[in-house]
Amino acid sequence: MINVGIVGATGLAGEELIKLLLKHPGVRITHLCAKIDKPQHIAKIFPAFKGRLDLICYQPNLKEITAKCDLVFLALPHTVSMNMAPALLKAHKKVIDLSADYRLSDIRVYRKFYNVAHKDKIHLKEAVYGLPELYRNKIKTAKLIANPGCYPTAAILALAPLMALDLAEPASIIIDAKSGVSGAGRKLAEGFLFSEINEDFKAYKVNVHQHMPEINQELSKLAGEKIRVTFIPHLLPVQRGILETIYLKKSRRLLNKKQDLLKLYHKFYRKEPFVRIKGEGEFPRLKDVAGTNFCDIAIKENGANIIIIAAIDNLLKGASGQAVQNMNIMYKFPEHLGLL
Amino acid sequence: MINVGIVGATGLAGEELIKLLLKHPGVRITHLCAKIDKPQHIAKIFPAFKGRLDLICYQPNLKEITAKCDLVFLALPHTVSMNMAPALLKAHKKVIDLSADYRLSDIRVYRKFYNVAHKDKIHLKEAVYGLPELYRNKIKTAKLIANPGCYPTAAILALAPLMALDLAEPASIIIDAKSGVSGAGRKLAEGFLFSEINEDFKAYKVNVHQHMPEINQELSKLAGEKIRVTFIPHLLPVQRGILETIYLKKSRRLLNKKQDLLKLYHKFYRKEPFVRIKGEGEFPRLKDVAGTNFCDIAIKENGANIIIIAAIDNLLKGASGQAVQNMNIMYKFPEHLGLL
Amino acid sequence: MINVGIVGATGLAGEELIKLLLKHPGVRITHLCAKIDKPQHIAKIFPAFKGRLDLICYQPNLKEITAKCDLVFLALPHTVSMNMAPALLKAHKKVIDLSADYRLSDIRVYRKFYNVAHKDKIHLKEAVYGLPELYRNKIKTAKLIANPGCYPTAAILALAPLMALDLAEPASIIIDAKSGVSGAGRKLAEGFLFSEINEDFKAYKVNVHQHMPEINQELSKLAGEKIRVTFIPHLLPVQRGILETIYLKKSRRLLNKKQDLLKLYHKFYRKEPFVRIKGEGEFPRLKDVAGTNFCDIAIKENGANIIIIAAIDNLLKGASGQAVQNMNIMYKFPEHLGLL
Amino acid sequence: MINVGIVGATGLAGEELIKLLLKHPGVRITHLCAKIDKPQHIAKIFPAFKGRLDLICYQPNLKEITAKCDLVFLALPHTVSMNMAPALLKAHKKVIDLSADYRLSDIRVYRKFYNVAHKDKIHLKEAVYGLPELYRNKIKTAKLIANPGCYPTAAILALAPLMALDLAEPASIIIDAKSGVSGAGRKLAEGFLFSEINEDFKAYKVNVHQHMPEINQELSKLAGEKIRVTFIPHLLPVQRGILETIYLKKSRRLLNKKQDLLKLYHKFYRKEPFVRIKGEGEFPRLKDVAGTNFCDIAIKENGANIIIIAAIDNLLKGASGQAVQNMNIMYKFPEHLGLL
Repeated sequence: MINVGIVGATGLAGEELIKLLLKHPGVRITHLCAKIDKPQHIAKIFPAFKGRLDLICYQPNLKEITAKCDLVFLALPHTVSMNMAPALLKAHKKVIDLSADYRLSDIRVYRKFYNVAHKDKIHLKEAVYGLPELYRNKIKTAKLIANPGCYPTAAILALAPLMALDLAEPASIIIDAKSGVSGAGRKLAEGFLFSEINEDFKAYKVNVHQHMPEINQELSKLAGEKIRVTFIPHLLPVQRGILETIYLKKSRRLLNKKQDLLKLYHKFYRKEPFVRIKGEGEFPRLKDVAGTNFCDIAIKENGANIIIIAAIDNLLKGASGQAVQNMNIMYKFPEHLGLL
Repeated sequence: MINVGIVGATGLAGEELIKLLLKHPGVRITHLCAKIDKPQHIAKIFPAFKGRLDLICYQPNLKEITAKCDLVFLALPHTVSMNMAPALLKAHKKVIDLSADYRLSDIRVYRKFYNVAHKDKIHLKEAVYGLPELYRNKIKTAKLIANPGCYPTAAILALAPLMALDLAEPASIIIDAKSGVSGAGRKLAEGFLFSEINEDFKAYKVNVHQHMPEINQELSKLAGEKIRVTFIPHLLPVQRGILETIYLKKSRRLLNKKQDLLKLYHKFYRKEPFVRIKGEGEFPRLKDVAGTNFCDIAIKENGANIIIIAAIDNLLKGASGQAVQNMNIMYKFPEHLGLL
Repeated sequence: MINVGIVGATGLAGEELIKLLLKHPGVRITHLCAKIDKPQHIAKIFPAFKGRLDLICYQPNLKEITAKCDLVFLALPHTVSMNMAPALLKAHKKVIDLSADYRLSDIRVYRKFYNVAHKDKIHLKEAVYGLPELYRNKIKTAKLIANPGCYPTAAILALAPLMALDLAEPASIIIDAKSGVSGAGRKLAEGFLFSEINEDFKAYKVNVHQHMPEINQELSKLAGEKIRVTFIPHLLPVQRGILETIYLKKSRRLLNKKQDLLKLYHKFYRKEPFVRIKGEGEFPRLKDVAGTNFCDIAIKENGANIIIIAAIDNLLKGASGQAVQNMNIMYKFPEHLGLL
Repeated sequence: MINVGIVGATGLAGEELIKLLLKHPGVRITHLCAKIDKPQHIAKIFPAFKGRLDLICYQPNLKEITAKCDLVFLALPHTVSMNMAPALLKAHKKVIDLSADYRLSDIRVYRKFYNVAHKDKIHLKEAVYGLPELYRNKIKTAKLIANPGCYPTAAILALAPLMALDLAEPASIIIDAKSGVSGAGRKLAEGFLFSEINEDFKAYKVNVHQHMPEINQELSKLAGEKIRVTFIPHLLPVQRGILETIYLKKSRRLLNKKQDLLKLYHKFYRKEPFVRIKGEGEFPRLKDVAGTNFCDIAIKENGANIIIIAAIDNLLKGASGQAVQNMNIMYKFPEHLGLL
């Protein structure tokens, strides 16, 4: 039984972590904290937890956190995590960071997309990108996990087999992504009012979204060459879920040989507990992944082109569920424990 | 052709007024203003108006307003209107105020429910409560209209025939009201985020809502005795529309005689262009009134009890549509002009 | 480890049961069947179950069911359950019936509201009404559970303390109920199309809903006198959740003595794992109970009147969650197992 | 004042046509019919029209239609229109057909995508594709208008300037389209239930949608060469609106010269009353076009690639609004009459 704490417990990712960890037989939530005016019972903040979790949510205090936890989830805004992680690591705590702070290895790219200089280059180098399907072995012994972004999780899983096997033209990738509102967290801005979202749909951050460099970094590593995708996110009037429709061209290598891409995807992910490849003519939908840690992927050939559709629950496989999956790997729990 | 201005043009009621007045053949919008940082073209604020209305929205300036308008709609928050109306009236402008400032004749009640002292008792006395079905004659010559609240419009129309004819027990009235989110205007508060409203439903301001005294005042006038209703509003995850389910007991007078209430309602409202009485076994729904200025009402007897269901579009018959209906009466346009 | 089967596995209640039982450590789903054209893998019917449940859903066959299950959940339409339950009971299987077939002890009332004659009066007498908060002891040894309706569950829990203690006027009860769409199951009717429900709200089956006699029966038993409530259900544009706003008058008994109703409710339900009484000034909302087996209840006095607001997830505490709670009691599992 | 009839008045497009024509000062609705069991007052079918339109909706009868109308709108399912149009045209009535029956000039393509042989090749040749921005002159004298599909309207307007001026690589066009549910009309199918659509999002008819050949046909005409787009439609959980995100590559011609595409679009559509080009950094959203006849278009260059985003109300500019726009042109009304 390990003792876990959540820093940033009042955000959407924090709330989702609480739900998951409450049902997890191998852990005990021992500490909750967040940037709040004064300590409050978690059931006052989230009445849904009344009768299920009897803990106070405190203001963040490093001594408290290190005293009470073996593992700390940082469910904090970008740029805040890197102020807190170093001290926790120094105190020999394991850290799973759900922010973007330890995801981008190039600090110039980080600075460009997050508008601040990186403050913790030392741990940045040690951090493991927490996508189990690609980095499971490194995760096993990691001390600091950079939990992937929601859009990148779906995009990288959708494209990894093609990238790794040189089957697509790297310059041709277009990702038309659609996300539910929870992708933005519990942000108080006019654009997230019910009146603005309900019965609406729109593109935003057109080709400038901060998840684009994260996708580029991981695809480039897989392909062994520099990749720059076109990435257009859209805002759906639903609470949770991401669906990405991805367009790309076959590589000459692929055009020159017979290759059943569907079989290839099945094979690539055959041992993965949370990746499901759709059969011919079947396509993912948000409803099938909402509330689960699965990533559903369909692949369809169209002459020299390929269309891939991938869907995840942005709060689970795209955030808190993946964080728990990483924890399971780090602590040698069955990978699906508490997640099915 | 009359020249009209809208003060508070950037709120939901203001936006709806613009839409209505643009289609009205008897008026010209000559001035728009609102509490904004700097003057801006209205199509920058509401891209939906691009190509339809070529006007700048200014910051409020009394001279400008009086120079350009014959009639001024005040689509302002409560307590702000009474600071602006006196000067406009002094300049011999007609005013239709969509706020609550001139609705309650008892300033102690106003103070209790709106938390400020009333500042314009003089015009409060002259103001006409702009519910055409009850006060049409006074509206014709009014200089200042207190446009009714959304909940009160539906409640008063639903109950007026019974109150006026002494057919219900005054102490028995329960109004279970459900409103779409636009009832709260364009308010930036956590409670109005998509994440909070979508897939949720709840009661709020349980029996303390500021529209309750307005309903009490008008029903009391109709009944000739003091009436205090039980009023519980609820928040619906829809953009527009109010539906009220009203429960009350028959008066002894009604119990002692045969009286077909459905016929009575038909007769009471037979000349009204915007009140529709549902046939036996038919009931109102939001969809039938959304986007219209109608109030749909069903009445059903249940032994000694009566159930009334009434529905309106809160932004139209409950606000801007009724304001235009009042304007039509004041300026001798056909009452439905621009509203059908 | 008990072997359970679900008859009617393709309906909404069946789907929800599968989800719950998959996470329940004390049971194994051994059989699924439903009225379908031909046997099909459950993951073909519900792609969300791919990788989580490897079972074929068959057409109903009594031999199969009795051979494979200790306990059978009947998630069938009304009037179908009573054709299947007798044979299962004869084969010494335990049965939890989610339909209305064994809820009403008076078969004339059943005939009136469900339009068919009852066919199994023998087991009707043995059936236990599966509301644990009232009938826990009987449930422990029951062979046939009549799992309560969704509206009745919330209404009865909301009113039980007042009824049992003679604190309210029996003739005064008004239940204004609002339900999400899933209350109607997976019914293919024009009224349940997205176009009809989205952005709409309406009352339906005004004071003739088939759950009304169920509420009357249980409240009458509690009060020791005949009770007939006024019951108006409304349809909310959300997937799940029921919220009921209940109005009633204090009894003379209550008016004559000081009695803190909030304390009384706390006391009445103090040992209940799934009933939560809201503090003063707090009210239930769908979001707090959606996805849980809780019933949240607020009680507010208003002079001689009482307002009670209760909320449940209609698919969980109002159907499948309560069915699992009953199973837990019957099989001596901790009552909350698999439900928190 | 012209007399117009609507065949198929009970469908979504028919309902929308009634709303528009009621507000149109130049026409009188003289006949409504639809495939119904027996004649019924239109206010019984659509209670929203009570008090606004006093007409019976009949079963279709050619004599009745020709006796009462100068112009007939056919708001019928595909393959039904071509059974009715010939007789109307023979009786010298003008016809605006909202179905796909007269849109595709190649009957083999029609057969392939609509699964029936075409039955009216004679009028197919005379029919004018009713996209005013491209075919205004032909529309003026047309007797039979093939009113464009919803997806094609947005796609063709979005791409016309580039196609006409040879500025894009024809083989590169990818259209990622998202539509509200009303695009499917009032179809009673499980996939359109609230439970299936709400909180969901998915692709459908992946690269096999029947609107694809219509887009190909019109873009090919503009480009003067055969064009085959990649077209993936998705289903949004909203009632109305289409937003298309379009990806394509610049042609060599465009790469070789400086050309401000935004200016070019402004110029191409400068006289169009219903096309609005967004300024730099601004993008369309459903809310801005919902309830209007506008098509909003944004164009953004990204190196050698171009991204275009276009939005319309599928029931207005994508169906009934465009039909009225065509009527205005045919009858020499101002083109925007009844549409602003």
